Amino acid sequence: MLDFSDLSVVDVHCHPYIRKEKLSADDWVAEVSFGGGSAEYLQEGGIEVDDAVLAMLQRLKRDTLYFRYMLRRLAEYFQVEATVEAVVEARNRAIADEGYAVYAQRLHQASGIETLIVDDGHPLPQVDLGSFRAEVGVEVAPVFRIEVLIQQLLDEVSSWPEFQRAYDDGIAAALSDGGYKGLKSIIAYRTGLDIDPRSRSSAQGMIALEKIRRARGRGGDAIKNLRDHLFCRAIERCIEFDVPFQVHTGMGDWEVHLAACRPALLMELLRYPAYRACKFLLVHTGYPYHAEAGYIANVLPNIWCDLSEGLPFAGNAGARIIAEVLEMAPPSRVCYGSDTYGSPEPFYTSALLGKQALAQALQALINDGFMSAAQAQESAKMILSDNARELYGI
Amino acid sequence: MLDFSDLSVVDVHCHPYIRKEKLSADDWVAEVSFGGGSAEYLQEGGIEVDDAVLAMLQRLKRDTLYFRYMLRRLAEYFQVEATVEAVVEARNRAIADEGYAVYAQRLHQASGIETLIVDDGHPLPQVDLGSFRAEVGVEVAPVFRIEVLIQQLLDEVSSWPEFQRAYDDGIAAALSDGGYKGLKSIIAYRTGLDIDPRSRSSAQGMIALEKIRRARGRGGDAIKNLRDHLFCRAIERCIEFDVPFQVHTGMGDWEVHLAACRPALLMELLRYPAYRACKFLLVHTGYPYHAEAGYIANVLPNIWCDLSEGLPFAGNAGARIIAEVLEMAPPSRVCYGSDTYGSPEPFYTSALLGKQALAQALQALINDGFMSAAQAQESAKMILSDNARELYGI
Amino acid sequence: MLDFSDLSVVDVHCHPYIRKEKLSADDWVAEVSFGGGSAEYLQEGGIEVDDAVLAMLQRLKRDTLYFRYMLRRLAEYFQVEATVEAVVEARNRAIADEGYAVYAQRLHQASGIETLIVDDGHPLPQVDLGSFRAEVGVEVAPVFRIEVLIQQLLDEVSSWPEFQRAYDDGIAAALSDGGYKGLKSIIAYRTGLDIDPRSRSSAQGMIALEKIRRARGRGGDAIKNLRDHLFCRAIERCIEFDVPFQVHTGMGDWEVHLAACRPALLMELLRYPAYRACKFLLVHTGYPYHAEAGYIANVLPNIWCDLSEGLPFAGNAGARIIAEVLEMAPPSRVCYGSDTYGSPEPFYTSALLGKQALAQALQALINDGFMSAAQAQESAKMILSDNARELYGI
Repeated sequence: MLDFSDLSVVDVHCHPYIRKEKLSADDWVAEVSFGGGSAEYLQEGGIEVDDAVLAMLQRLKRDTLYFRYMLRRLAEYFQVEATVEAVVEARNRAIADEGYAVYAQRLHQASGIETLIVDDGHPLPQVDLGSFRAEVGVEVAPVFRIEVLIQQLLDEVSSWPEFQRAYDDGIAAALSDGGYKGLKSIIAYRTGLDIDPRSRSSAQGMIALEKIRRARGRGGDAIKNLRDHLFCRAIERCIEFDVPFQVHTGMGDWEVHLAACRPALLMELLRYPAYRACKFLLVHTGYPYHAEAGYIANVLPNIWCDLSEGLPFAGNAGARIIAEVLEMAPPSRVCYGSDTYGSPEPFYTSALLGKQALAQALQALINDGFMSAAQAQESAKMILSDNARELYGI
Repeated sequence: MLDFSDLSVVDVHCHPYIRKEKLSADDWVAEVSFGGGSAEYLQEGGIEVDDAVLAMLQRLKRDTLYFRYMLRRLAEYFQVEATVEAVVEARNRAIADEGYAVYAQRLHQASGIETLIVDDGHPLPQVDLGSFRAEVGVEVAPVFRIEVLIQQLLDEVSSWPEFQRAYDDGIAAALSDGGYKGLKSIIAYRTGLDIDPRSRSSAQGMIALEKIRRARGRGGDAIKNLRDHLFCRAIERCIEFDVPFQVHTGMGDWEVHLAACRPALLMELLRYPAYRACKFLLVHTGYPYHAEAGYIANVLPNIWCDLSEGLPFAGNAGARIIAEVLEMAPPSRVCYGSDTYGSPEPFYTSALLGKQALAQALQALINDGFMSAAQAQESAKMILSDNARELYGI
Repeated sequence: MLDFSDLSVVDVHCHPYIRKEKLSADDWVAEVSFGGGSAEYLQEGGIEVDDAVLAMLQRLKRDTLYFRYMLRRLAEYFQVEATVEAVVEARNRAIADEGYAVYAQRLHQASGIETLIVDDGHPLPQVDLGSFRAEVGVEVAPVFRIEVLIQQLLDEVSSWPEFQRAYDDGIAAALSDGGYKGLKSIIAYRTGLDIDPRSRSSAQGMIALEKIRRARGRGGDAIKNLRDHLFCRAIERCIEFDVPFQVHTGMGDWEVHLAACRPALLMELLRYPAYRACKFLLVHTGYPYHAEAGYIANVLPNIWCDLSEGLPFAGNAGARIIAEVLEMAPPSRVCYGSDTYGSPEPFYTSALLGKQALAQALQALINDGFMSAAQAQESAKMILSDNARELYGI
């Protein structure tokens, strides 16, 4: 069996977080589990959240394969029993003993993580990256989520000329002085990936904004037209600054627009002549529609696939996602990512799972005559770090 | 290899049938095979159904992996050659020898089946459940298919006040005195799963019914609006009576609305605040879109996945479906089901296949570090019976 | 492990090509790789194509699993090192030594290829089939791509009566005297597979053509209405001449209508009574939506699945595609195809990969109790050649 334990890792998609030195078992579960199904969600539906409901929600999260895997790996790391209580106690104690930064750095070193490319658009309010950097002890390179800026402008700005200028300036400032290495969009959570590529003209933005301002909730497609336009505008900035554009595709938490998050819906836009110079990273490689992302990364020259979220949150899916993405996408177009957040532990277990899944997938490819052992080794290195380093110039 | 032969089984989704003590080989094939591709289907298309066509249809059904598997398992059971003729002869003889009820009960015992949760909305006219119960020799708990009632009201009732009252009363009667343990909908066969969650108001039902009555076939979206409204109304009854709602998703026979049967299309409805208290069972776990169902069962707290139809009718798909559903859905949210009908034999072979597929899928999870052997045993028990028992309170 | 090396092969879907006796390494890569991502594509987007870009494009194609597999198999065949340069040199030398026809014939014999069913609608201008036949040394049976005729009529004919007559006559001539064995459509590249089955009336064609002629690019749905009508008309010709209709589904190069190429979208049309007598071959079995194609081939009686394009261009996907198609489709409804073009080598490696993938998939089915070894052997023979021979009467 292949073994990639020693390879270094760039996590091409994850989120910063606020340091929490001491957590209860339940709170730790809430911090590191995959989103959704929360108590607030039920309360909004008029359901009384009593102890039984809270216990049900905890069980739901703890029962997933992803969670069980994480627990077993952390139990090995801490040399404790594989129970939430034992693992969380060991974590809290280790942080108390050696300090947060040393604790985090050790975990990252143990899994080979050298760089985190973070989307600081989640959680909100935004985490201070200076503090985060100091606490995680590895290189941190942020990408700029356009929806944070869009929301701010929707809240504050009325006139289109001003909106347009503030949008362009905000992005330019982020990419020039702000230290951001690229852009990110979660339009798949808003109006969906069926973005009309002919949305470039400033007139579309103006008309849409005007409708939204006047409509008081009856704007029809105006909000979609505005978001489509701003997405196209963001592509043009990426080309201008020669930085990649991360686009959320596929699964998210319960708020994603599930019927309109398939990578296939992006195809019209991606192949539009004006946007062919932009490098796109299809975040989450569209899981469970990842074969579409792999296909696009084959037939178009500027598309990368990020394995995050399916890996690790879909547990046993890791090797399958990698194998199915590689059916069409060349290994030079696939990047490891985790989409983890909340605490250093899931970053660690995700990297371990990623290496295990990669070893399993590539071993099968060797066995079936699709690559040599040397090519598998080279592919693993590219997927775990080199491709992301080349893409982001780090 | 894991072995779940001894575990008991609740079949969370299947259909009652009329006892047929003696069948010809061809008729047995027609009874127990997966629907569609029939002689009537071709005749409707103006095709003359001669012996050659009938032979082709028989071959089509007998050639599938599902059918071959069933035949081999029944040949083992009856200790005869694995041909249709030998198996059907053995079946007819056993029924003649020991009586139908004993025959059925022995088959169910041999595969561990203890309870059948049946949708008596298929076949039509409805099978008498009293007789069925007596003949199958295991516990039978029915769910109420709303489309049977809807069709009856469309045929008989003109005014909306009367329609609405009869619909509510019909459901309430079924759930209180009728012995029904929950509701079921096949709206995926009618107007599709993209149900507008804002269809709750009685006004929508009234306007839609009026349009249908006046339109003489030119009602536009009226029939969809009516069905969407009645679906939402049914959710509210499920919440009121605290019973689960089975919703067909994914494959069916040739009549399903294939372009609008994906679980993802249900998402807007499932997360609508007013419906969050309802427990939904995604029937067929949306196969071949089962990853979507598993995802929804992870991010929303009241969603269960029923493995039926893909298992057993998609033959070798069983282990894959289970593995892919468990990528996101916790084992506590997955139920065994068969969707079988027609005769006791497919209930038996489906349970055997389910146990084999489950053993294969869970063994791989143990091997890859996602669960312990004890957790696999516990998961199998939950999936084969406990989850369904808890969900239906049986 | 099963071994199908000795079985003969009918390639149910591939393309003729112009003989090229001597190729540079880069040109050979361009000829035999999967389409898309080319230099022209980038140039259209205003990107300067310099040496670095050309090197990137070459790397993209050479890096895919499909390409690596092909290279390794050809290196074995030529007994040279597994580098592009060595393989292309060996190829050029062999052609120079033994002549093109002998070279091609030897490759085909080595993989068992006996018949190529070719769509001569690609590449354009059309390859002369007489010369192609002489050069490939195996039986060649063409199918007629309706879009070539449609484009020609759109370019040349204004009146609907003339268009309609020329369309019908063109198809009839191809199927009677032209030697074509059936029709083919790539409507999935144009207006998508959601073809309205009620498009049969000549009036729809007339109105649509008139709108197109007057609209100067603002014809709305007219072009879709026209193509839908001509597709339905083509179905009726297939029924009349009793020949199969190949319909592109699923992946293509970057020009396919990715959001509207899923086989599920065809379902409404396929089950429309007037078309039930037509035999449809779902080209590429809709990969990566191949489970949909397999499902349709189960529930409708006149549907065949062609494995081409996913096999070989999706590299390691072969065994998975076969296994997943066979979940529902009986083996008597599945045909081997390659969709290869450009030079004899990919036809050879595709057949080898097809046999390997088939062996792997069927072996797993034997192991899991879904077929006997004898049934696996019979299934392989059907899939590799018998089904296509029966379907095309060759």
